[in-house]
Amino acid sequence: MAKDIVILGSTGSIGTQTLEVIKDLEASNQEKFNIVGLGCGTSTDLLVRQINRFKPDMVSVKGEPERKIVSRKISKDVEIRTGSEGLKTLAGMTNTGTVVNALVGFVGLEPTLEAIGSSSRILLANKESLVIGGPLVDRKLKNSKTSLIPIDSEHNAIFQALETGKEKEVERLLITASGGPFLSTPLDRIDSASPEEALDHPNWDMGSRITCDSASMVNKGLEVIEAHWLFDLSYEKITAVVHPQSVIHSLVQFHDGSMIGELGEPDMKVPIQYALTYPRRLENDYGRTDIVDLAKLEFKELEESRYPAFNLVVEAGKSGGNRPAAVNGADEELIDEFLAENIRFGGIARGLDLVLEDLEPVENPSFEDLKSTDVWARKKARSLVEEKIIGDR
Amino acid sequence: MAKDIVILGSTGSIGTQTLEVIKDLEASNQEKFNIVGLGCGTSTDLLVRQINRFKPDMVSVKGEPERKIVSRKISKDVEIRTGSEGLKTLAGMTNTGTVVNALVGFVGLEPTLEAIGSSSRILLANKESLVIGGPLVDRKLKNSKTSLIPIDSEHNAIFQALETGKEKEVERLLITASGGPFLSTPLDRIDSASPEEALDHPNWDMGSRITCDSASMVNKGLEVIEAHWLFDLSYEKITAVVHPQSVIHSLVQFHDGSMIGELGEPDMKVPIQYALTYPRRLENDYGRTDIVDLAKLEFKELEESRYPAFNLVVEAGKSGGNRPAAVNGADEELIDEFLAENIRFGGIARGLDLVLEDLEPVENPSFEDLKSTDVWARKKARSLVEEKIIGDR
Repeated sequence: MAKDIVILGSTGSIGTQTLEVIKDLEASNQEKFNIVGLGCGTSTDLLVRQINRFKPDMVSVKGEPERKIVSRKISKDVEIRTGSEGLKTLAGMTNTGTVVNALVGFVGLEPTLEAIGSSSRILLANKESLVIGGPLVDRKLKNSKTSLIPIDSEHNAIFQALETGKEKEVERLLITASGGPFLSTPLDRIDSASPEEALDHPNWDMGSRITCDSASMVNKGLEVIEAHWLFDLSYEKITAVVHPQSVIHSLVQFHDGSMIGELGEPDMKVPIQYALTYPRRLENDYGRTDIVDLAKLEFKELEESRYPAFNLVVEAGKSGGNRPAAVNGADEELIDEFLAENIRFGGIARGLDLVLEDLEPVENPSFEDLKSTDVWARKKARSLVEEKIIGDR
Repeated sequence: MAKDIVILGSTGSIGTQTLEVIKDLEASNQEKFNIVGLGCGTSTDLLVRQINRFKPDMVSVKGEPERKIVSRKISKDVEIRTGSEGLKTLAGMTNTGTVVNALVGFVGLEPTLEAIGSSSRILLANKESLVIGGPLVDRKLKNSKTSLIPIDSEHNAIFQALETGKEKEVERLLITASGGPFLSTPLDRIDSASPEEALDHPNWDMGSRITCDSASMVNKGLEVIEAHWLFDLSYEKITAVVHPQSVIHSLVQFHDGSMIGELGEPDMKVPIQYALTYPRRLENDYGRTDIVDLAKLEFKELEESRYPAFNLVVEAGKSGGNRPAAVNGADEELIDEFLAENIRFGGIARGLDLVLEDLEPVENPSFEDLKSTDVWARKKARSLVEEKIIGDR
């Protein structure tokens, strides 16, 4: 029997790859999914093609203009919703099905909360759901039968490794980090690095925010926060380690001395398929790693002076409350300012520090508190640039 | 409730380490074992100390002389058996308990067969049980509720990795090999290498047979045969790869593209404890690997010209029947001849080739057939030396 599935963010990188995996599984007669809902923002052309191919019952787009465009191009029996209400409705529409949350940004949190309890499995690529909403998601998840499977390569690797033991048997998580484009850059040249330099990621081909975040290691800091919530582990047990080849996606050191890791190509279809078909592993012809071709794997400590933003982010996670929301919102704005060449690369970390310094902390934030913090932090970050406090380019 | 356990080979390296793990688990109040039987060969002094410490109901020693020595030194309520009959009795004495088979050589096969069905778990360190007796063990195991857990580091790593998937989902096993002392030796100097050079293993501190077997890679060939039987995988799916640091103990590539590996220190207590307490992982303070200290892990293809014996052994496994028994018996004799400086190091591979050439194959050997092959192969190997056919030193 085909499983119902909803894909939020269906026109983005993870969304389109999820649809490819679903097509491949159907073509190889291994698994059939019934795509009941697709949600996206403004990529109406691609959404229309997806509607024609996958025949969902309901879709959601950003707003009225996108709704009109899509409405003209498809048959009447597909319901079209809009905005965050639309995404929430999609997230709640499968009863025992799967929800893939590949939305980017704060907008992904509400659908995750909605899908908990109303779906049997959430495939999570939206990092804000845990970075910002960790306590809310965690609380709701504990009282539900919904399982949450991460599909980014690091957390998916940890999820796989944890199949060999229990969370309470974990001594240490080692989240690997490529080190980004500035791994070997002389320290005094990083501050003034250009957007082209920051966007030149050695291993993964990703969007510009996440690539910039890899350069600053904000990304790795946010992953530490995600791991904390996903695997119910104290921050003391979570370490990031630089591994330039990005072949070992992450490692779990158990308290009996065994260390389990997952290795492979930088091909997101592998974790996506794993999460879709878990606990079964189905056949595919996605990227294979020939370990002899790799010749060597290297490991280094994460240098604080090279990645000052990393500790800022982890500390925000440890202190909790609305701090991770502030970091996340401010970081997005600061990256935009950096890519627009309004601030230096080093201004990102300095900006985060100043935003956190000025933040009015809320210790047990509601969803509304988090939303206000996000808005405040973005505004604060922009004002730091406008007032030339970090406008040092 | 304490679990009954029998340890065969209790005075050897694996046996004594097993007893240490049991003591540690008891000292940390995590698990209690009731040691009901201990079996050894001629190390009577150590056995007596073990009897006094662990109070088994029954022990077994090599023969009458050893029985008399032990009998004089212990209280009357411990039953003392002898020889292979004694080991068999020990192997069959736990009803739902654990049997650790850390015997060395052919003598380990019968106790393994005996323990199948009469114990709930066998911890296997005796490689002959599967190398020689694979088909017999496999057949008996399939009709029993006994589980077999390997405790050598490579197969234990594979066992752990397989917790994340099923045997039928495996695309490839990668058994890692350190490369031994001759990894970088000029090819033309290996043939005439001295026993001192062959015994100089870079990572593991082991007995002289297994160290010589690491130098010739006979060991890795035998491990391929073991993996074939342990994990029910065709030989085509099993590859050996040289990994000089021996940190990744082995890898499982699944057919969905994920690769799972187990890493750690060369400390046998880790896999021994894992196998004792599986599926639980209990705390210990055994060796921990700091991956940053390792700095790098390397991988190389296994060069046929450097390790000619490897393919000989794997081919014997593939052809099956009594061939692995011949290889195993002959190899033991040839190593003795090499260590006694009667033949060159290269004579081991040449001898194995000649023994296999002369072997009368038996396709579905009984236990008795295998025993005769072992005896024949040893005699044949010695005769090759005595007749100076490979006596080229």
